[in-house]
Order: sequence, then C-alpha cells, then structure tokens
Amino acid sequence: MPALMPYDKQLPYTYAPGIYPAMEALLYQAQAVTRVLVHSRLKEGEGAQALLALCQKLGIRVEVADKALKRITGKDNTYAAAVVRKLQQALALTANHLVLVQPMDAGNLGTILRTALGFGYRDIALIKPCTDPFDPQVIRASMGAMFQLQLTEYAGIDNYMEQHPRHQLYPFMLTGSLPLKAAVHNKKSPHSLVFGNEGSGLDDSYASLGTPVRIEQTKMVDSLNLSVAAAVAMYAFSTIQGT
Amino acid sequence: MPALMPYDKQLPYTYAPGIYPAMEALLYQAQAVTRVLVHSRLKEGEGAQALLALCQKLGIRVEVADKALKRITGKDNTYAAAVVRKLQQALALTANHLVLVQPMDAGNLGTILRTALGFGYRDIALIKPCTDPFDPQVIRASMGAMFQLQLTEYAGIDNYMEQHPRHQLYPFMLTGSLPLKAAVHNKKSPHSLVFGNEGSGLDDSYASLGTPVRIEQTKMVDSLNLSVAAAVAMYAFSTIQGT
Repeated sequence: MPALMPYDKQLPYTYAPGIYPAMEALLYQAQAVTRVLVHSRLKEGEGAQALLALCQKLGIRVEVADKALKRITGKDNTYAAAVVRKLQQALALTANHLVLVQPMDAGNLGTILRTALGFGYRDIALIKPCTDPFDPQVIRASMGAMFQLQLTEYAGIDNYMEQHPRHQLYPFMLTGSLPLKAAVHNKKSPHSLVFGNEGSGLDDSYASLGTPVRIEQTKMVDSLNLSVAAAVAMYAFSTIQGT
Repeated sequence: MPALMPYDKQLPYTYAPGIYPAMEALLYQAQAVTRVLVHSRLKEGEGAQALLALCQKLGIRVEVADKALKRITGKDNTYAAAVVRKLQQALALTANHLVLVQPMDAGNLGTILRTALGFGYRDIALIKPCTDPFDPQVIRASMGAMFQLQLTEYAGIDNYMEQHPRHQLYPFMLTGSLPLKAAVHNKKSPHSLVFGNEGSGLDDSYASLGTPVRIEQTKMVDSLNLSVAAAVAMYAFSTIQGT
C-alpha cells in the first residue's frame, strides 16, 4: 500500500482524526473508509474498544502507525484516524439547505456543520472560494458530523440557484429588511439560509436574490460571530421537535 | 512607571489586546484604562487614527512599546493594547442573567460574552472554578464586549442563588423536561439561563433548582457546542426587537 501523505486538497482521500470522528466515518460512510490507523498508545478505553470492534465487524483494516499518524495530522496526540475516500454528494432537491458563501475558517466551518446536523439541515452548499470542507481540521471540528451531511461546492451563487430553482433564498444580512422572527412566521419551503463569510458578510447584491433577513440584536455589538448567527437562524427556522 | 508583566490572574490589571478591543475599553471603561501601548509599526489605518484620537481626547497616555507588547501578549502581531484595571461589578438585581457553570475555555467564554451583549444579556455570573474572565484571550475573543458587561464570579451556584433569590432558574440540560420553545412561551423574569461547561454540561442536581430546559435537536449529534447552545437560548429568550 502506498505511504499516506500529509493531507492536501488534491488527494482523493482525507483523514478523520480522533476516535470520535473516525467512528462517525465508520458508522455513516463505511463504504468510503479504506483503513483505520491507530497509535500504539491507544488507550484501552470504551471509545478505543468500540472503534476496534466496529472495524472488525465491517472488515476494515486496522494498522498501528504512530509515525504516519503524526505525519498526516501534524500532532502528537492523535490516537486514531480513519482514511476516507472523498465522496461527491448531491444535495437533496426538496430539502431545506444551508448555503455558506466563501467560508474561510476551517474550525468555524466544522462547528457550523455540527450545528446544522443538530438542527436538521443536512444539505450544505459551499460557494467558492472557500476553505476545503474535506480538510481534517474541518472534520475534527465537526466531530465527524460531516459524514452524515451532503456537501456540494459551487463556483458561484448563480450556479447554485440554477440547480435549485425552487428554493426560496433567505440571505442573512445586517441590513436585512425582515427580522428573523417575522421571517420564520411566514417561512417557505424548500428554502436556503444564506450566510456570508466571517469577515465581510454578504454584499448588497444578495438582497435582491431572495428575502433578506436580519437577526434581531442590540446595537452594542457590530455583528454576531458567523457560527453563532448560523446556529440561531437554523434553530429558528427548524421544525425539529426534539424528544 | 513599573514594567508591565505578562498577564497573570493575580495582577490588578489586564490587557485589552488589539485595536478594536482597546477601543472598546476606552469607550466603555475609560476610568479603568491607565495607558495604551502601541507598536512602532501601527499602521496609519482608520482604526489606528481613531484609537490615538480617543486617547488624546480622554487624556490617556500612549506609549510606543514594541517589546512590552510582545512580552505581555506573547504575539508578534499585536499592534495595540490597553492596560485596564480590573473592576468588580455587581450584577443588576432585576435584570435577566446568564450563568455559566465552570466554563474552562477562554475562546469559548469570549465568544459567549460577545453573543450575550448582542442579545441583551449584560449580567453574567460565573460559577468557579472557571477560566479567568479577565484573561486577555477572553477579552480578545469577546472583541472587547466584556467592557459593556457586568461579570461576577461566585464560589458555587448556592452563593449565586442566595444573592439573587428572585430569579427563576432555567438550567439547560440534554434531559431537560421542557423544550426551549415551550419555556420561552411561558418565560418568567427576572430569569437566569444556566449552562454547564464544555465537557460535561450540568449534573443532574441542577434539574431541581429551576425549570430544566432542552434545546430541540436531532439525535444525530450528541450535544451542541456550548457557545452555540447559549446563543440559541439567549436569542430565543430575548425580547430584542432590533432596528
């Protein structure tokens, strides 16, 4: 088997670093997992046992590979990683979508993906240029949530809209004409909640693409953190009842 | 004037690192700012001009102090920092509160403080042990929001409750009996939204201290990120209309 390379966007595979993210890869994208690397110091904890048992059940090769783990993750304290082929996954045509325009921070993107799964948004559009969603940092920050999501990258918002003409767009903007609570009251489906990037938000042209929404907030802060704004919006639009 | 020390919890002062956080300190706690340090490479941008103009207007000493900036922040790229005396600030007795039980991550705490200000929760109780709220990392992550907040540390939740007996507590727990939307529908004021720490949440004993609430979410994730959960709860409970 060829030596594993440090992660690079060009590689056809990625790494799910950490016991929990590796488990999520095995549970939800087993067909894409080619092997699982473990450290010789992998502790005999519950998580480690569950990981090894699942690999055995699925017939997935486990290798003790201390050096490879360090090389591919750049960290000394990663005790397991799944090697996962990158799968293209089309967004569901009738589901509600989350659209992130040019997100640049891997940690932020991972957090948002985890929140999206928590609030039932499983179809995520990324408008390029953006941080690479397969970057192991994203996978780690998402705690493996991305293995339960469909993600597609689009060259521009136009391309996205062409492929999803039925979706009502809700661009989130500080100058949005409709407060979030009012938008939720009259929400249409399928819809797309659209967010700009960490630094600059959405430019004014987005206002004409749909119904621009603002999150009600005091004037004491300029704007909310992207992952906070996306979470609040998804929660408010979500119909999840919980259990 | 004595040499400034790298930040330590025992010091009577802290640092607001970065142009924006330093501005916030000057705008909202000018009485506590003893001086402002700037780097000799501080750029002639809008922010830098505004900072220097504000110092002049307030009569606050500005020092070019490249080495001190590096020493106190541990970073090469901090171009300004305000030196700020730590002020004790009592929580408002009739306002709604955010109560964070043993938060341990400085970045998380900063993000939560910024969100709290955005949603009108200006009185924050911290139950010890917890990360030091005056740590410059917290101030940086809050973008200076903490200078518009009242923060008080309490030895335990009992101490907090003794001092605020009129507050209805809403502990947020995965096993909470009341969904958030229902809790909001019947919300009482003044209230306290109570969150556990990043790793373990609140222990079962909190359920009996008030009305335990759960945030409606899918079963596809174990739990939400603390800063996400707190943001969603504050937004839902908030009566901010925005403008």
